Amino acid sequence: MINQKLRNTLLGLSLLGLILLFGASAAMAADDKLDVVYHVSEEDKVGFVLNNIQNHIEGIGGPEKINIVLVSHGPAVKRFHDIEAVNKVRENVAKLQEQGVTFEACANTLTALGFERDELLSGFVIAEKGGVTRIAELQSEGYVYLRP
Amino acid sequence: MINQKLRNTLLGLSLLGLILLFGASAAMAADDKLDVVYHVSEEDKVGFVLNNIQNHIEGIGGPEKINIVLVSHGPAVKRFHDIEAVNKVRENVAKLQEQGVTFEACANTLTALGFERDELLSGFVIAEKGGVTRIAELQSEGYVYLRP
Amino acid sequence: MINQKLRNTLLGLSLLGLILLFGASAAMAADDKLDVVYHVSEEDKVGFVLNNIQNHIEGIGGPEKINIVLVSHGPAVKRFHDIEAVNKVRENVAKLQEQGVTFEACANTLTALGFERDELLSGFVIAEKGGVTRIAELQSEGYVYLRP
Repeated sequence: MINQKLRNTLLGLSLLGLILLFGASAAMAADDKLDVVYHVSEEDKVGFVLNNIQNHIEGIGGPEKINIVLVSHGPAVKRFHDIEAVNKVRENVAKLQEQGVTFEACANTLTALGFERDELLSGFVIAEKGGVTRIAELQSEGYVYLRP
Repeated sequence: MINQKLRNTLLGLSLLGLILLFGASAAMAADDKLDVVYHVSEEDKVGFVLNNIQNHIEGIGGPEKINIVLVSHGPAVKRFHDIEAVNKVRENVAKLQEQGVTFEACANTLTALGFERDELLSGFVIAEKGGVTRIAELQSEGYVYLRP
Repeated sequence: MINQKLRNTLLGLSLLGLILLFGASAAMAADDKLDVVYHVSEEDKVGFVLNNIQNHIEGIGGPEKINIVLVSHGPAVKRFHDIEAVNKVRENVAKLQEQGVTFEACANTLTALGFERDELLSGFVIAEKGGVTRIAELQSEGYVYLRP
Protein backbone atom coordinates (compact mmCIF):
# COMPACT_ATOMS: atom_id res chain seq x y z
CA MET A 1 0.00 0.00 0.00
CA ILE A 2 2.71 2.43 0.94
CA ASN A 3 4.60 1.48 -2.21
CA GLN A 4 1.49 2.13 -4.28
CA LYS A 5 0.97 5.59 -2.82
CA LEU A 6 4.61 6.48 -3.32
CA ARG A 7 4.54 5.26 -6.91
CA ASN A 8 1.60 7.53 -7.54
CA THR A 9 3.46 10.43 -5.98
CA LEU A 10 6.52 9.67 -8.10
CA LEU A 11 4.42 9.46 -11.24
CA GLY A 12 2.82 12.78 -10.37
CA LEU A 13 6.20 14.43 -9.88
CA SER A 14 7.52 12.97 -13.13
CA LEU A 15 4.53 14.35 -15.01
CA LEU A 16 5.02 17.74 -13.37
CA GLY A 17 8.67 17.66 -14.44
CA LEU A 18 7.75 16.87 -18.02
CA ILE A 19 5.19 19.69 -18.05
CA LEU A 20 7.81 22.13 -16.75
CA LEU A 21 10.33 20.82 -19.29
CA PHE A 22 8.21 21.26 -22.35
CA GLY A 23 6.16 24.22 -21.20
CA ALA A 24 8.57 26.80 -22.60
CA SER A 25 8.83 25.28 -26.07
CA ALA A 26 5.04 24.77 -26.18
CA ALA A 27 4.61 28.48 -25.41
CA MET A 28 7.05 29.48 -28.14
CA ALA A 29 5.15 27.51 -30.76
CA ALA A 30 1.82 28.70 -29.39
CA ASP A 31 0.53 29.95 -32.74
CA ASP A 32 2.12 27.18 -34.87
CA LYS A 33 3.77 29.77 -37.09
CA LEU A 34 7.41 30.14 -38.00
CA ASP A 35 8.65 33.58 -36.88
CA VAL A 36 11.02 35.29 -39.29
CA VAL A 37 12.64 38.72 -39.17
CA TYR A 38 13.78 40.07 -42.53
CA HIS A 39 16.39 42.81 -42.58
CA VAL A 40 17.04 45.34 -45.32
CA SER A 41 19.37 48.33 -45.36
CA GLU A 42 20.34 48.86 -49.03
CA GLU A 43 18.03 50.90 -51.27
CA ASP A 44 18.50 48.63 -54.25
CA LYS A 45 17.56 45.53 -52.25
CA VAL A 46 14.05 46.71 -51.37
CA GLY A 47 12.26 45.28 -54.43
CA PHE A 48 14.17 42.01 -54.12
CA VAL A 49 13.31 41.62 -50.42
CA LEU A 50 9.61 42.23 -51.05
CA ASN A 51 9.69 39.48 -53.70
CA ASN A 52 11.57 37.19 -51.31
CA ILE A 53 8.93 37.66 -48.63
CA GLN A 54 6.12 36.88 -51.09
CA ASN A 55 8.00 33.76 -52.21
CA HIS A 56 8.55 32.75 -48.60
CA ILE A 57 4.83 32.98 -47.82
CA GLU A 58 4.02 30.88 -50.87
CA GLY A 59 6.91 28.45 -50.31
CA ILE A 60 5.87 27.65 -46.76
CA GLY A 61 2.25 27.10 -47.73
CA GLY A 62 0.46 30.38 -47.03
CA PRO A 63 0.29 33.33 -44.62
CA GLU A 64 -1.21 31.18 -41.85
CA LYS A 65 2.06 29.26 -41.59
CA ILE A 66 4.41 32.19 -41.05
CA ASN A 67 4.80 35.40 -39.10
CA ILE A 68 7.10 37.88 -40.85
CA VAL A 69 8.47 41.23 -39.68
CA LEU A 70 10.57 43.30 -42.09
CA VAL A 71 12.84 45.72 -40.25
CA SER A 72 14.32 48.44 -42.47
CA HIS A 73 17.02 50.91 -41.56
CA GLY A 74 19.59 53.00 -43.40
CA PRO A 75 19.12 54.07 -47.03
CA ALA A 76 16.44 51.40 -47.70
CA VAL A 77 13.92 53.43 -45.69
CA LYS A 78 13.84 56.09 -48.45
CA ARG A 79 12.02 53.63 -50.70
CA PHE A 80 9.16 53.46 -48.22
CA HIS A 81 8.58 57.22 -48.16
CA ASP A 82 4.96 57.81 -49.08
CA ILE A 83 5.81 60.32 -51.83
CA GLU A 84 9.07 58.76 -53.07
CA ALA A 85 7.85 55.16 -53.20
CA VAL A 86 7.40 53.73 -56.69
CA ASN A 87 4.12 51.99 -57.51
CA LYS A 88 5.64 48.52 -57.42
CA VAL A 89 6.92 48.99 -53.84
CA ARG A 90 3.68 50.65 -52.74
CA GLU A 91 1.59 47.80 -54.15
CA ASN A 92 3.81 45.00 -52.85
CA VAL A 93 3.92 46.48 -49.34
CA ALA A 94 0.10 46.71 -49.30
CA LYS A 95 -0.24 43.18 -50.66
CA LEU A 96 2.14 41.78 -48.03
CA GLN A 97 0.42 43.71 -45.23
CA GLU A 98 -2.85 42.05 -46.26
CA GLN A 99 -1.06 38.72 -45.73
CA GLY A 100 -0.04 39.74 -42.20
CA VAL A 101 3.52 40.98 -42.78
CA THR A 102 4.59 43.74 -40.36
CA PHE A 103 6.79 46.58 -41.66
CA GLU A 104 9.02 48.43 -39.25
CA ALA A 105 11.37 51.35 -39.86
CA CYS A 106 14.24 52.51 -37.65
CA ALA A 107 13.53 55.68 -35.63
CA ASN A 108 17.20 56.75 -35.86
CA THR A 109 17.07 56.49 -39.64
CA LEU A 110 13.96 58.67 -39.80
CA THR A 111 15.78 61.35 -37.81
CA ALA A 112 18.89 61.04 -40.01
CA LEU A 113 16.81 61.32 -43.19
CA GLY A 114 14.69 64.16 -41.80
CA PHE A 115 11.48 62.15 -42.32
CA GLU A 116 8.42 62.67 -40.16
CA ARG A 117 6.79 59.51 -38.82
CA ASP A 118 3.68 60.00 -40.93
CA GLU A 119 5.65 60.32 -44.16
CA LEU A 120 6.15 56.57 -44.57
CA LEU A 121 3.73 54.29 -46.39
CA SER A 122 0.58 53.46 -44.48
CA GLY A 123 0.88 50.86 -41.72
CA PHE A 124 4.58 51.25 -40.98
CA VAL A 125 5.56 50.75 -37.35
CA ILE A 126 8.44 52.81 -35.95
CA ALA A 127 11.16 50.78 -34.22
CA GLU A 128 11.66 53.32 -31.42
CA LYS A 129 14.86 51.80 -30.04
CA GLY A 130 16.35 51.57 -33.52
CA GLY A 131 16.34 48.95 -36.27
CA VAL A 132 19.29 46.85 -35.13
CA THR A 133 18.07 46.81 -31.53
CA ARG A 134 14.71 45.56 -32.79
CA ILE A 135 16.24 42.84 -34.99
CA ALA A 136 18.34 41.51 -32.09
CA GLU A 137 15.29 41.66 -29.81
CA LEU A 138 13.17 39.63 -32.24
CA GLN A 139 15.96 37.07 -32.66
CA SER A 140 16.25 36.65 -28.90
CA GLU A 141 12.49 35.96 -28.89
CA GLY A 142 13.09 33.06 -31.30
CA TYR A 143 12.75 34.75 -34.71
CA VAL A 144 14.85 33.30 -37.51
CA TYR A 145 16.99 35.95 -39.26
CA LEU A 146 17.03 36.53 -43.02
CA ARG A 147 19.13 39.14 -44.73
CA PRO A 148 18.64 38.84 -48.54
CA MET B 1 14.06 -2.58 2.86
CA ILE B 2 11.22 -0.48 1.62
CA ASN B 3 13.47 2.56 1.77
CA GLN B 4 16.11 0.77 -0.29
CA LYS B 5 13.62 -0.24 -3.00
CA LEU B 6 12.21 3.26 -3.15
CA ARG B 7 15.65 4.77 -3.40
CA ASN B 8 16.35 2.54 -6.34
CA THR B 9 13.09 3.58 -7.94
CA LEU B 10 13.89 7.23 -7.35
CA LEU B 11 17.35 6.84 -8.81
CA GLY B 12 15.85 5.10 -11.83
CA LEU B 13 13.36 7.92 -12.35
CA SER B 14 16.06 10.55 -11.98
CA LEU B 15 18.16 8.82 -14.60
CA LEU B 16 15.14 8.59 -16.89
CA GLY B 17 14.56 12.31 -16.38
CA LEU B 18 18.14 13.13 -17.26
CA ILE B 19 17.95 10.97 -20.37
CA LEU B 20 14.76 12.76 -21.44
CA LEU B 21 16.37 16.09 -20.65
CA PHE B 22 19.45 15.62 -22.74
CA GLY B 23 17.94 13.37 -25.41
CA ALA B 24 16.97 16.26 -27.68
CA SER B 25 20.35 18.00 -27.62
CA ALA B 26 22.12 14.65 -28.06
CA ALA B 27 20.00 14.00 -31.17
CA MET B 28 20.83 17.44 -32.57
CA ALA B 29 24.55 16.84 -32.20
CA ALA B 30 24.22 13.24 -33.36
CA ASP B 31 26.94 13.56 -35.98
CA ASP B 32 29.19 15.84 -33.90
CA LYS B 33 29.29 18.39 -36.70
CA LEU B 34 28.46 22.07 -36.63
CA ASP B 35 25.64 22.78 -39.10
CA VAL B 36 25.99 26.02 -41.06
CA VAL B 37 23.83 27.50 -43.81
CA TYR B 38 25.61 30.00 -46.05
CA HIS B 39 23.49 32.44 -48.05
CA VAL B 40 24.46 34.28 -51.22
CA SER B 41 22.35 36.44 -53.49
CA GLU B 42 24.77 38.92 -55.14
CA GLU B 43 26.67 37.84 -58.26
CA ASP B 44 29.88 39.52 -57.19
CA LYS B 45 29.89 37.75 -53.82
CA VAL B 46 30.05 34.22 -55.27
CA GLY B 47 33.84 33.90 -55.42
CA PHE B 48 34.19 35.42 -51.97
CA VAL B 49 31.65 33.04 -50.43
CA LEU B 50 33.34 29.99 -51.96
CA ASN B 51 36.64 31.15 -50.41
CA ASN B 52 34.90 31.76 -47.07
CA ILE B 53 33.52 28.23 -47.05
CA GLN B 54 36.95 26.74 -47.79
CA ASN B 55 38.44 28.85 -44.99
CA HIS B 56 35.67 27.76 -42.64
CA ILE B 57 36.37 24.08 -43.30
CA GLU B 58 40.07 24.61 -42.65
CA GLY B 59 39.50 26.92 -39.68
CA ILE B 60 37.30 24.44 -37.85
CA GLY B 61 39.74 21.58 -38.42
CA GLY B 62 38.49 19.75 -41.51
CA PRO B 63 35.34 18.61 -43.33
CA GLU B 64 34.55 15.99 -40.67
CA LYS B 65 33.85 18.80 -38.18
CA ILE B 66 31.28 20.76 -40.19
CA ASN B 67 28.20 20.33 -42.32
CA ILE B 68 27.71 23.21 -44.76
CA VAL B 69 24.83 24.01 -47.12
CA LEU B 70 25.15 27.00 -49.46
CA VAL B 71 21.75 28.31 -50.54
CA SER B 72 21.88 30.65 -53.54
CA HIS B 73 19.06 32.73 -54.92
CA GLY B 74 18.72 35.89 -57.00
CA PRO B 75 21.46 37.07 -59.39
CA ALA B 76 24.14 34.89 -57.73
CA VAL B 77 22.62 31.79 -59.32
CA LYS B 78 23.82 32.97 -62.77
CA ARG B 79 27.39 32.24 -61.73
CA PHE B 80 26.53 28.59 -61.22
CA HIS B 81 25.14 28.12 -64.75
CA ASP B 82 27.07 25.26 -66.32
CA ILE B 83 27.95 27.29 -69.43
CA GLU B 84 28.36 30.73 -67.83
CA ALA B 85 30.44 29.61 -64.84
CA VAL B 86 34.09 30.68 -64.90
CA ASN B 87 36.74 28.03 -64.27
CA LYS B 88 37.52 29.30 -60.78
CA VAL B 89 33.88 28.91 -59.66
CA ARG B 90 33.54 25.55 -61.39
CA GLU B 91 36.70 24.21 -59.73
CA ASN B 92 35.93 25.57 -56.27
CA VAL B 93 32.38 24.20 -56.32
CA ALA B 94 33.71 20.74 -57.25
CA LYS B 95 36.43 20.95 -54.60
CA LEU B 96 33.92 21.93 -51.90
CA GLN B 97 31.49 19.21 -52.99
CA GLU B 98 34.28 16.67 -52.49
CA GLN B 99 34.54 17.99 -48.93
CA GLY B 100 30.83 17.41 -48.37
CA VAL B 101 29.41 20.88 -48.99
CA THR B 102 25.86 20.86 -50.41
CA PHE B 103 24.90 23.46 -53.04
CA GLU B 104 21.28 24.47 -53.39
CA ALA B 105 19.66 26.91 -55.82
CA CYS B 106 16.25 28.57 -55.50
CA ALA B 107 13.55 27.12 -57.77
CA ASN B 108 11.88 30.55 -58.12
CA THR B 109 15.16 32.07 -59.29
CA LEU B 110 15.59 29.38 -61.93
CA THR B 111 12.15 30.21 -63.28
CA ALA B 112 12.87 33.95 -63.20
CA LEU B 113 16.18 33.48 -65.03
CA GLY B 114 14.68 31.03 -67.52
CA PHE B 115 17.16 28.32 -66.51
CA GLU B 116 16.37 24.63 -66.79
CA ARG B 117 17.20 22.51 -63.74
CA ASP B 118 19.93 20.61 -65.59
CA GLU B 119 21.70 23.80 -66.67
CA LEU B 120 23.40 24.36 -63.31
CA LEU B 121 26.77 22.91 -62.37
CA SER B 122 26.77 19.23 -61.55
CA GLY B 123 25.46 18.25 -58.11
CA PHE B 124 23.26 21.28 -57.47
CA VAL B 125 20.09 20.57 -55.49
CA ILE B 126 16.97 22.60 -56.29
CA ALA B 127 15.33 24.28 -53.28
CA GLU B 128 11.80 23.56 -54.47
CA LYS B 129 10.03 25.82 -51.96
CA GLY B 130 12.44 28.66 -52.73
CA GLY B 131 15.78 29.78 -51.35
CA VAL B 132 14.57 31.91 -48.44
CA THR B 133 12.09 29.24 -47.33
CA ARG B 134 14.94 26.74 -47.31
CA ILE B 135 17.29 29.01 -45.34
CA ALA B 136 14.65 29.61 -42.66
CA GLU B 137 13.89 25.88 -42.56
CA LEU B 138 17.54 24.98 -42.02
CA GLN B 139 17.87 27.62 -39.29
CA SER B 140 14.84 26.24 -37.48
CA GLU B 141 16.56 22.84 -37.59
CA GLY B 142 19.53 24.37 -35.72
CA TYR B 143 21.76 25.57 -38.56
CA VAL B 144 23.85 28.66 -37.85
CA TYR B 145 23.38 31.40 -40.48
CA LEU B 146 26.22 33.06 -42.36
CA ARG B 147 25.74 35.76 -44.95
CA PRO B 148 29.20 36.95 -46.17
CA MET C 1 7.24 8.60 9.37
CA ILE C 2 8.50 6.65 6.37
CA ASN C 3 6.18 8.68 4.20
CA GLN C 4 7.55 11.89 5.65
CA LYS C 5 11.17 10.89 5.02
CA LEU C 6 10.38 9.82 1.49
CA ARG C 7 8.53 13.04 0.81
CA ASN C 8 11.59 14.96 1.89
CA THR C 9 13.75 12.83 -0.40
CA LEU C 10 11.35 13.42 -3.27
CA LEU C 11 11.34 17.14 -2.64
CA GLY C 12 15.12 17.13 -2.57
CA LEU C 13 15.31 15.28 -5.87
CA SER C 14 12.75 17.59 -7.46
CA LEU C 15 14.76 20.62 -6.41
CA LEU C 16 17.93 19.00 -7.76
CA GLY C 17 16.11 18.36 -11.05
CA LEU C 18 14.99 21.97 -11.28
CA ILE C 19 18.50 23.20 -10.57
CA LEU C 20 19.88 20.93 -13.32
CA LEU C 21 17.10 22.07 -15.65
CA PHE C 22 17.71 25.77 -15.32
CA GLY C 23 21.43 25.66 -14.65
CA ALA C 24 22.41 25.90 -18.32
CA SER C 25 20.17 28.87 -19.14
CA ALA C 26 21.22 30.59 -15.91
CA ALA C 27 24.87 30.17 -16.93
CA MET C 28 24.19 31.59 -20.39
CA ALA C 29 22.59 34.70 -18.95
CA ALA C 30 25.20 34.90 -16.20
CA ASP C 31 26.09 38.50 -16.92
CA ASP C 32 22.56 39.63 -17.83
CA LYS C 33 23.78 40.99 -21.15
CA LEU C 34 22.53 40.30 -24.63
CA ASP C 35 25.36 38.83 -26.74
CA VAL C 36 25.50 40.08 -30.32
CA VAL C 37 27.99 39.35 -33.10
CA TYR C 38 28.10 41.97 -35.85
CA HIS C 39 29.55 40.99 -39.21
CA VAL C 40 31.04 43.27 -41.85
CA SER C 41 32.84 42.40 -45.08
CA GLU C 42 32.22 45.36 -47.45
CA GLU C 43 34.51 48.39 -47.22
CA ASP C 44 31.69 50.87 -47.72
CA LYS C 45 29.66 49.37 -44.87
CA VAL C 46 32.24 50.06 -42.17
CA GLY C 47 31.04 53.55 -41.18
CA PHE C 48 27.42 52.39 -41.24
CA VAL C 49 28.12 49.37 -39.02
CA LEU C 50 29.98 51.49 -36.45
CA ASN C 51 26.95 53.82 -36.30
CA ASN C 52 24.63 50.82 -35.99
CA ILE C 53 26.60 49.49 -33.04
CA GLN C 54 26.50 52.86 -31.26
CA ASN C 55 22.75 53.04 -31.89
CA HIS C 56 22.35 49.50 -30.59
CA ILE C 57 24.13 50.34 -27.33
CA GLU C 58 21.94 53.40 -26.85
CA GLY C 59 18.76 51.65 -27.99
CA ILE C 60 19.13 48.82 -25.50
CA GLY C 61 19.84 51.21 -22.62
CA GLY C 62 23.64 51.39 -22.31
CA PRO C 63 26.82 49.31 -22.57
CA GLU C 64 26.02 47.38 -19.37
CA LYS C 65 23.07 45.74 -21.17
CA ILE C 66 24.91 44.35 -24.18
CA ASN C 67 28.04 42.47 -25.17
CA ILE C 68 29.04 43.17 -28.78
CA VAL C 69 31.76 41.60 -30.94
CA LEU C 70 32.33 42.97 -34.45
CA VAL C 71 34.00 40.41 -36.70
CA SER C 72 35.44 41.86 -39.90
CA HIS C 73 36.82 39.98 -42.86
CA GLY C 74 37.35 40.64 -46.55
CA PRO C 75 37.78 44.17 -47.96
CA ALA C 76 36.27 45.82 -44.83
CA VAL C 77 39.45 45.08 -42.90
CA LYS C 78 41.34 47.68 -44.99
CA ARG C 79 39.39 50.44 -43.25
CA PHE C 80 40.83 49.35 -39.89
CA HIS C 81 44.46 49.61 -41.03
CA ASP C 82 46.20 51.98 -38.62
CA ILE C 83 47.59 54.16 -41.41
CA GLU C 84 44.69 53.91 -43.88
CA ALA C 85 41.88 54.46 -41.37
CA VAL C 86 40.07 57.79 -41.65
CA ASN C 87 39.61 59.85 -38.48
CA LYS C 88 35.92 59.07 -38.22
CA VAL C 89 36.56 55.30 -38.17
CA ARG C 90 39.51 55.68 -35.81
CA GLU C 91 37.47 57.76 -33.37
CA ASN C 92 34.37 55.60 -33.51
CA VAL C 93 36.34 52.39 -32.96
CA ALA C 94 38.02 53.92 -29.89
CA LYS C 95 34.70 55.22 -28.58
CA LEU C 96 33.05 51.82 -28.98
CA GLN C 97 36.00 50.03 -27.38
CA GLU C 98 35.56 52.28 -24.33
CA GLN C 99 31.98 50.99 -24.20
CA GLY C 100 33.21 47.39 -24.18
CA VAL C 101 32.83 46.47 -27.86
CA THR C 102 35.39 43.90 -29.07
CA PHE C 103 36.85 44.22 -32.58
CA GLU C 104 38.12 41.13 -34.35
CA ALA C 105 39.73 40.78 -37.77
CA CYS C 106 40.10 37.60 -39.83
CA ALA C 107 43.62 36.14 -39.87
CA ASN C 108 43.14 34.85 -43.44
CA THR C 109 42.20 38.34 -44.62
CA LEU C 110 45.34 39.83 -43.03
CA THR C 111 47.45 37.32 -44.97
CA ALA C 112 45.54 38.02 -48.20
CA LEU C 113 45.98 41.79 -47.78
CA GLY C 114 49.62 41.48 -46.75
CA PHE C 115 48.94 43.21 -43.42
CA GLU C 116 51.00 42.53 -40.33
CA ARG C 117 49.05 41.90 -37.13
CA ASP C 118 50.28 45.12 -35.54
CA GLU C 119 49.17 47.26 -38.47
CA LEU C 120 45.52 47.33 -37.41
CA LEU C 121 44.03 49.95 -35.11
CA SER C 122 44.88 49.51 -31.45
CA GLY C 123 42.96 46.81 -29.57
CA PHE C 124 42.03 44.62 -32.54
CA VAL C 125 41.92 40.89 -31.79
CA ILE C 126 42.94 38.47 -34.55
CA ALA C 127 40.41 35.72 -35.31
CA GLU C 128 43.06 33.03 -35.77
CA LYS C 129 40.72 30.41 -37.26
CA GLY C 130 39.25 32.97 -39.65
CA GLY C 131 36.36 35.41 -39.51
CA VAL C 132 33.55 33.10 -40.62
CA THR C 133 34.70 30.33 -38.28
CA ARG C 134 34.61 32.84 -35.43
CA ILE C 135 31.15 34.15 -36.32
CA ALA C 136 29.71 30.62 -36.41
CA GLU C 137 31.47 29.80 -33.14
CA LEU C 138 29.97 32.85 -31.40
CA GLN C 139 26.51 32.01 -32.74
CA SER C 140 26.76 28.48 -31.42
CA GLU C 141 27.59 30.01 -28.02
CA GLY C 142 24.28 31.90 -28.15
CA TYR C 143 25.24 35.16 -29.83
CA VAL C 144 22.58 36.82 -31.97
CA TYR C 145 23.78 37.59 -35.53
CA LEU C 146 23.55 40.99 -37.18
CA ARG C 147 24.76 41.74 -40.67
CA PRO C 148 23.91 45.39 -41.51
